[in-house]
Amino acid sequence: MIRSFLIAKFSKDKKLYQKLHNILGFYPSKISLYKIAITHNSYRNNTNNEVKKGNNERLEFLGDAVLGMVVAEKLYLKFPYQNEGFLTEMRSKIVGRSKLNSIGKKMGIHQLLQYDQKLRNNPVFIDSITGNAFESIIGAIYLDKGFGFTKSFIVNNIIETYIDFEELLIQELSYKAKLVKWAQKEKKKVDFSLKSVEIENKRKIYEVAILLEGEEIIVGRNHSKKIAEELASEKFCIQLSI
Amino acid sequence: MIRSFLIAKFSKDKKLYQKLHNILGFYPSKISLYKIAITHNSYRNNTNNEVKKGNNERLEFLGDAVLGMVVAEKLYLKFPYQNEGFLTEMRSKIVGRSKLNSIGKKMGIHQLLQYDQKLRNNPVFIDSITGNAFESIIGAIYLDKGFGFTKSFIVNNIIETYIDFEELLIQELSYKAKLVKWAQKEKKKVDFSLKSVEIENKRKIYEVAILLEGEEIIVGRNHSKKIAEELASEKFCIQLSI
Repeated sequence: MIRSFLIAKFSKDKKLYQKLHNILGFYPSKISLYKIAITHNSYRNNTNNEVKKGNNERLEFLGDAVLGMVVAEKLYLKFPYQNEGFLTEMRSKIVGRSKLNSIGKKMGIHQLLQYDQKLRNNPVFIDSITGNAFESIIGAIYLDKGFGFTKSFIVNNIIETYIDFEELLIQELSYKAKLVKWAQKEKKKVDFSLKSVEIENKRKIYEVAILLEGEEIIVGRNHSKKIAEELASEKFCIQLSI
Repeated sequence: MIRSFLIAKFSKDKKLYQKLHNILGFYPSKISLYKIAITHNSYRNNTNNEVKKGNNERLEFLGDAVLGMVVAEKLYLKFPYQNEGFLTEMRSKIVGRSKLNSIGKKMGIHQLLQYDQKLRNNPVFIDSITGNAFESIIGAIYLDKGFGFTKSFIVNNIIETYIDFEELLIQELSYKAKLVKWAQKEKKKVDFSLKSVEIENKRKIYEVAILLEGEEIIVGRNHSKKIAEELASEKFCIQLSI
């Protein structure tokens, strides 16, 4: 830790080290990983070849897997009497796009982002790349500091800090709730209808359709009926821009 | 290790310890986890309450996440110049249902399974619960021995032993190939048609339809067009029982 601090103090990247320390609570060892993690594809004004190749999506792939695993273990231990379906659903609530975007923002990751400044007035874009960079940073922490450190970071600085399990338990998955609220306000009739249940390798796959005024609009598919409804709702919310 | 060996030698579960050692290459410390992992829901003839509740699906949830993460890291490091789409596709090939079933069988996990013996002549069932138990066992190893041990186990005993990357690279995803082969044999016309590309949070989602003699049969959706085709093909192969 002291070594990382000294490197940070005398580095040409002193400012970035300090910002990362403020947001993450520790000094990175391999700063180049974090530079990649915070740089979106749209950012052209840089000299780092790896960044140029848009490699923060590779780190996002890795970070997504690390986050998913640590959350899976946490849920497994926290809910010893709940079945796989429950655990899957809870994990979807925690690592879903909108939750990641919002956690990334609360952490202040949007302040670190490097991207094409022409896009700076597009809040949907900023939200989305904030969530992606959040996952990329998890990938960078894992490669920089190892599994034990990253697991503690995720548990303490993310799950214990930003996840309210009581709230998640009583909360409807967000997009369905949003859609139903919209329908009430607009006095439209929205229904969810189970279209089919297929069996794939002994697991049920539910296909759920959203009907707007009785007409099928969009479908969602998943092992969990609730998540299938949520996926369909998410797509529809995006179409409706709500 | 010596401690585990001695426990195994004088335990009432001596036979199970030995079988697990033969298959996994080490003696478990917490045998109860492995008992859960190898017991399918259909198995009623037992006195273990946790097993009774069908909890090997919980371990499967955990093992799936651990396996997915270790494979993600391995791919990240092995293919430094490939993008996220490539990594996602390779991971799907490695941790897909049929691959897991076949690895589980090659390891000999089917010899450990406890399930309702009325189902013993159903090879599809046995294949499927073998793959699931394989994931459950990964979950058990993780809880028993920790991350470092499990990662080495997955890399050495699974990836290095059963995964041929050269073959994966040139291999078409299996279900599409199977379907095309079936169509040739049956002299049917099968086409893949891109139905739509949606943007969700800056990521493209491809919806691909399979047309049989020009008529739409089934669709698949994914961030990767290839995987969308594969998902649709998998469903169709199951419908056709091929």
